[in-house]
Amino acid sequence: MSLPENLRNRLCDLLGDRLSEGAADRDHHAQSESFHRAPPPDAVAWPETTQEVSAILAACDEVGVPVIAWGAGTSLEGHALAVRGGLTLDFGRMDRVLEVRPEDMTVSIQPGVTREALNQELRATGLFFSVDPGANASLGGMAATRASGTTAVRYGTMRDNVLALEVVLADGRIIRTGTRAAKSSAGYDLTALFVGSEGTLGIITELTLRLHGQPEQVAAAVCAFDDLDRAVECVSTTIQSGIPMARIEFVDAATARAFNGYAGASLPELPHLMVEFHGSPGAVREDAERFGEIAADYGAKGFDWATTPEDRARLWRMRHGAYHACLSLRPGASGVLTDICVPMSELPAAVHAAAEDIAANGFIGPIVGHVGDGNFHSILLVDPGDEAEVARAKEVAFRMAERALAVGGTITGEHGVGLGKRALMPAQHGEAWQVMGAIKAALDPRDTLNPGKLVPDRN
Amino acid sequence: MSLPENLRNRLCDLLGDRLSEGAADRDHHAQSESFHRAPPPDAVAWPETTQEVSAILAACDEVGVPVIAWGAGTSLEGHALAVRGGLTLDFGRMDRVLEVRPEDMTVSIQPGVTREALNQELRATGLFFSVDPGANASLGGMAATRASGTTAVRYGTMRDNVLALEVVLADGRIIRTGTRAAKSSAGYDLTALFVGSEGTLGIITELTLRLHGQPEQVAAAVCAFDDLDRAVECVSTTIQSGIPMARIEFVDAATARAFNGYAGASLPELPHLMVEFHGSPGAVREDAERFGEIAADYGAKGFDWATTPEDRARLWRMRHGAYHACLSLRPGASGVLTDICVPMSELPAAVHAAAEDIAANGFIGPIVGHVGDGNFHSILLVDPGDEAEVARAKEVAFRMAERALAVGGTITGEHGVGLGKRALMPAQHGEAWQVMGAIKAALDPRDTLNPGKLVPDRN
Ligand SMILES: Cc1cc2nc3c(=O)[nH]c(=O)nc-3n(C[C@H](O)[C@H](O)[C@H](O)COP(=O)(O)OP(=O)(O)OC[C@H]3O[C@@H](n4cnc5c(N)ncnc54)[C@H](O)[C@@H]3O)c2cc1C
Ligand SMILES: Cc1cc2nc3c(=O)[nH]c(=O)nc-3n(C[C@H](O)[C@H](O)[C@H](O)COP(=O)(O)OP(=O)(O)OC[C@H]3O[C@@H](n4cnc5c(N)ncnc54)[C@H](O)[C@@H]3O)c2cc1C
Repeated sequence: MSLPENLRNRLCDLLGDRLSEGAADRDHHAQSESFHRAPPPDAVAWPETTQEVSAILAACDEVGVPVIAWGAGTSLEGHALAVRGGLTLDFGRMDRVLEVRPEDMTVSIQPGVTREALNQELRATGLFFSVDPGANASLGGMAATRASGTTAVRYGTMRDNVLALEVVLADGRIIRTGTRAAKSSAGYDLTALFVGSEGTLGIITELTLRLHGQPEQVAAAVCAFDDLDRAVECVSTTIQSGIPMARIEFVDAATARAFNGYAGASLPELPHLMVEFHGSPGAVREDAERFGEIAADYGAKGFDWATTPEDRARLWRMRHGAYHACLSLRPGASGVLTDICVPMSELPAAVHAAAEDIAANGFIGPIVGHVGDGNFHSILLVDPGDEAEVARAKEVAFRMAERALAVGGTITGEHGVGLGKRALMPAQHGEAWQVMGAIKAALDPRDTLNPGKLVPDRN
Repeated sequence: MSLPENLRNRLCDLLGDRLSEGAADRDHHAQSESFHRAPPPDAVAWPETTQEVSAILAACDEVGVPVIAWGAGTSLEGHALAVRGGLTLDFGRMDRVLEVRPEDMTVSIQPGVTREALNQELRATGLFFSVDPGANASLGGMAATRASGTTAVRYGTMRDNVLALEVVLADGRIIRTGTRAAKSSAGYDLTALFVGSEGTLGIITELTLRLHGQPEQVAAAVCAFDDLDRAVECVSTTIQSGIPMARIEFVDAATARAFNGYAGASLPELPHLMVEFHGSPGAVREDAERFGEIAADYGAKGFDWATTPEDRARLWRMRHGAYHACLSLRPGASGVLTDICVPMSELPAAVHAAAEDIAANGFIGPIVGHVGDGNFHSILLVDPGDEAEVARAKEVAFRMAERALAVGGTITGEHGVGLGKRALMPAQHGEAWQVMGAIKAALDPRDTLNPGKLVPDRN
């Protein structure tokens, strides 16, 4: 497919060489970090201003050409693939930090700013932005997927850290949602509605984010457990005890092996927890001691404290690299990913059942997770060319999701719906999925924005 | 007006004597805590189950009779008044705590449970529900107004503490939003959409709430300042310093006077801060010391520590009673209330400007606030029969709202829109207000649910 002649002319006038129909540019935007594949979009545009985004959307909406936003392209469920063709909007050129307000602990940015660039920019302020998915994602994409990371257990997810948005609607109207105040009761929470909407309700052109103060003291450690059950039970007990963990991450024995091979680590091939404490020196000491006592009850051993900032950076870089490290366990493999999140009391049983199912089906399927939230992933390594194997992996993933729903959990804690989780939406939401469809139809009547994702197909 | 014959028969069959068209019942549901007035509803119903709510809504929607939810009737902007007649649904009989899950720190309840009843029920668990508006509101009403209270600075508002809802839609469909997991990325955040929707999008029939552990140690104090500016500047500095305040409340000199008269206090007639610290003994000591140092810089004096649980209960009961205490400063008066919330750095100027405008216009208008969030109220005491005075008070209130918007704040931090703030919605939201209207039209096409509130009128 290609853009309608008329639309191409309008967009060329508007964007010049920031519109491309070249194969390389299109193919680059047909890639995905997971096994999902789709044909490339018809064209790619690199807008530089909100006004341009507005003009592009109005033009595409008029002639019924889909528009798909693209941040860093690191989403894991094929979110940004142009399954119905159309125009991909790459936000790589809208990457400015607009205003830091240290005294309010907020920042306003364009959507293409990446989390690493943002924290680089904030370094001198004593503040940081807390949400840290493993990839160096864009903040626009992170808002759109309601992303989280290792620190959500303490500082929350994108839901909690986005204060306000500028959004361009399908027909080109520009709106602002939220304010810079800490709270508001002035009508429907449109900010929360656009966060997690995966580019299907509107295109985010500006974000105002909550920042946090750099903790006075930080302590981090890794420790090993004899078996998976004891490691995960230690997590439940820790969270239930109320210790305000800044991070508490689980990696299983397979992941530890992957770290050794891929990241030059030398961990025993056992399940591990990686933990971090933030606060005043006294509080960090108290918290670390209390955690140490709980961990000892579960037989934790080989406590390794990361004392310098460099050691800690190395530790978390390793954790953030878990996905790619795990992929390296089977060269050429892709990952069928699960992302369930369950109530804390259900976590040990959920991880146990997942591990059993993976083993019973003969997969290499490392398990890692932001377990302080009750959230974990298994990365089922498959040969993307082997349809039968992919199908079998999807069955394992499907059963994990079903078990999560049965105990009051969710099919996706942080990655989002995209293509990969859409078939599970009716099971999770029932009639509420139709309500999502009604909202989509009200805001995007021609189904211009990222069509074929998240909501039910139109009748 | 009265109910259409057919509808009355259907509802009578369904509810028996839990449907009333009696004058006393109708008049009771025409009352409001503020100066807003409207004719009574045509009838009042007391449902006992979700199925009943569903049947009532389907029946009313069919014949175009408005349905207005009623929790405890404590909202301050005429939210629950039947401005277009119809049926008021009183949730007083749906007041059961359904399930406490201490190990997950969650609870599921019916909407008519009040915040005091809930915390009574939780006493033995070591957990508490944190959101505490001054009135003993229902949790359904608190969710519907996105309420907050004195502890929001630490534990968040209803936005942060509602995990999942059961909602009956205008046509009677029953949906569930959210899960019991700590986070989810499974599609649009319908929970956040219904929280704060003031009964205009759906009727909440069940809530799952986040609980918090009772802090190991609690310390509370009240202290006085020479003038309003220094008290409020102390708040900004405290919050910016990162001390994790559990409560930090401001009351001005007029409010202190009201407490003395109404609540038997003996405070100097000066501006005060009321503060509370939660945590481990060490952390509470550190936090209280740091706060004490900051407060001393602003000339705080007369520190009075509430050391026993009874003393603290008395302190916060007094604070919760501020609205009624202030009303007593002018017998027979009603309150025109403001509820702005601004970014922390703007708080001192905002309070200062409000106080000046109130004084310049000769009002008794005490100022109190959840200032740790940047949120404060002035209670402009008016003779509800004196239209000119009410109009003048509304002008003062309007200017406060305008100033809040000019610095990135909101017209209502916690009370919500109701009747009183609706005229300000275009100023705050611009085109986004139309988006709220489009969502309302999609979910409630016949405008059955609390019509005439929150969104623009239908064309
Ligand atoms: C190694 C690795 C580790 C990861 N770890 C985590 C993790 O810990 N936690 C986590 O949550 N995720 C994780 N992810 C997934 C991914 O990083 C997140 O989903 C991230 O939020 C995607 O951001 P992005 O900028 O890459 O978005 P993209 O992939 O470009 O887009 C994602 C979705 O957002 C939409 N979108 C993008 N920009 C906008 C915009 N401006 N307006 C509207 N819609 C927009 C797109 O249309 C698409 O639907 C990981 C991925 C990898 C590869
Ligand atoms: C003395 C005093 C102090 C106060 N202090 C505070 C404060 O500190 N913070 C604060 O936020 N508020 C405060 N308020 C205001 C009030 O308590 C809150 O707005 C509260 O949330 C209202 O709850 P309610 O149960 O009384 O709701 P109601 O007044 O009965 O209803 C409020 C709105 O919610 C809707 N509603 C009620 N139940 C449902 C349901 N089940 N489903 C859908 N919609 C529903 C109604 O239709 C209406 O629109 C105070 C009020 C008083 C009188």
